[in-house]
Amino acid sequence: MTVDLYFFQPLVTNSARVYLSLLEKGVPFNEHVLGAQMSHLSDEFKKINPRGQVPAMVHDGKALYEGMTMNEYIDERMRAWCRYAENDLGRALMMINWNRIMPARSGNMSQDDLKRFAEQVPDPDRRRSWINARTAGTPVAEIEESYRRVVSGVQRIEKHLRNNKWIAGSEYSLADIDLVNFTGYISYWAPQWIQELLVDEVTTPATFDWLNRFKERPAVKTMNERTVRRPTPVQQAARVS
Amino acid sequence: MTVDLYFFQPLVTNSARVYLSLLEKGVPFNEHVLGAQMSHLSDEFKKINPRGQVPAMVHDGKALYEGMTMNEYIDERMRAWCRYAENDLGRALMMINWNRIMPARSGNMSQDDLKRFAEQVPDPDRRRSWINARTAGTPVAEIEESYRRVVSGVQRIEKHLRNNKWIAGSEYSLADIDLVNFTGYISYWAPQWIQELLVDEVTTPATFDWLNRFKERPAVKTMNERTVRRPTPVQQAARVS
Repeated sequence: MTVDLYFFQPLVTNSARVYLSLLEKGVPFNEHVLGAQMSHLSDEFKKINPRGQVPAMVHDGKALYEGMTMNEYIDERMRAWCRYAENDLGRALMMINWNRIMPARSGNMSQDDLKRFAEQVPDPDRRRSWINARTAGTPVAEIEESYRRVVSGVQRIEKHLRNNKWIAGSEYSLADIDLVNFTGYISYWAPQWIQELLVDEVTTPATFDWLNRFKERPAVKTMNERTVRRPTPVQQAARVS
Repeated sequence: MTVDLYFFQPLVTNSARVYLSLLEKGVPFNEHVLGAQMSHLSDEFKKINPRGQVPAMVHDGKALYEGMTMNEYIDERMRAWCRYAENDLGRALMMINWNRIMPARSGNMSQDDLKRFAEQVPDPDRRRSWINARTAGTPVAEIEESYRRVVSGVQRIEKHLRNNKWIAGSEYSLADIDLVNFTGYISYWAPQWIQELLVDEVTTPATFDWLNRFKERPAVKTMNERTVRRPTPVQQAARVS
């Protein structure tokens, strides 16, 4: 993407906050200093921002005029990663897990019990996934699509982290929380061969570093202290089978 | 505010991401562990979340069911500070500045020049503020209201920073950028007596520390290196008058 920022010097207040947000989030941008001879009120600049005010930001032809809107827009990149974590990668991992774990777990369950359980699940989509998983009825092509998404997701994250300390740029954010809590738990959810293939010190060094830095955060340590350790679904499945 | 979080143990994936976000943002919450005997599918829990899924978060009677929505909601506190910075505190500071600086600057300007300039300002509200400031026509009561907002804003920020490292909790965010770029520039915008009264090591130690930590950030240093130093409006006004 190409970002053009029109701003005043010296960099204070409204110009400074957008300028600094772009720096912090690691967004490259072209700089245009206005202000001399009231150039922000010129007809030329009013073609860019009809309000004749700075800062103004133009991204791929789309112009934004208000500091708050610009910063929301910059932050939107972070939220796009959150959506990706939940809707794409997270769903793929959960789907893989359900279809690996559930059939083994349902081994001891009568058809009647299975039916009774399913009736308790209010969401129809969830209910269908649940029955499919428990009866090993999910089409193989759908499971393979989930594996494909996990592989490409892990590669995408590794590539991104080679150029960024955290997912949103220089700062830890909700995007790190969301991605770690799906990709970071591949060790719980995915089969051994995927773990070995995907996330290790040699194949994905940036992701490996990121996971280690994540573990050192005080809030993550607090959460881990409060986590009740039980056998993972993979371990449970191994025990049942 | 009271936050109740319903989640699964062990803390992984969806439960973990919301739990961790609350910890990171410094939001206190009551913990409710579900999962035993499929308690998330019980009629009792379905009164809280009709979908029978965890995590679920209840805030002052309002229930949220999706991880992404919950994290957005938690992040909303940060954005509320951004809005406060721009719409309340920032506007008050800019109003004070305009009304202190502009009349002195307009001293050399003919009525015709003033009128011609005003016509170039597209936004009618901005144009009115601009003319009022240049002709020393802003009602005193409005200026006093702006001072009141600055004083209460500085006190509010100090109180908040005594319990939080950064504005949004443990992490630097857009809210810090926005507040520093308004309150931090009080030295540019406000009269000497306000600076001395409001922000110093003794009266506002937490704010003072926060401003110093802000200055040490690599992106802030980069911005400061790229800032063209000119006399501040206050210095310029002093020179003109």
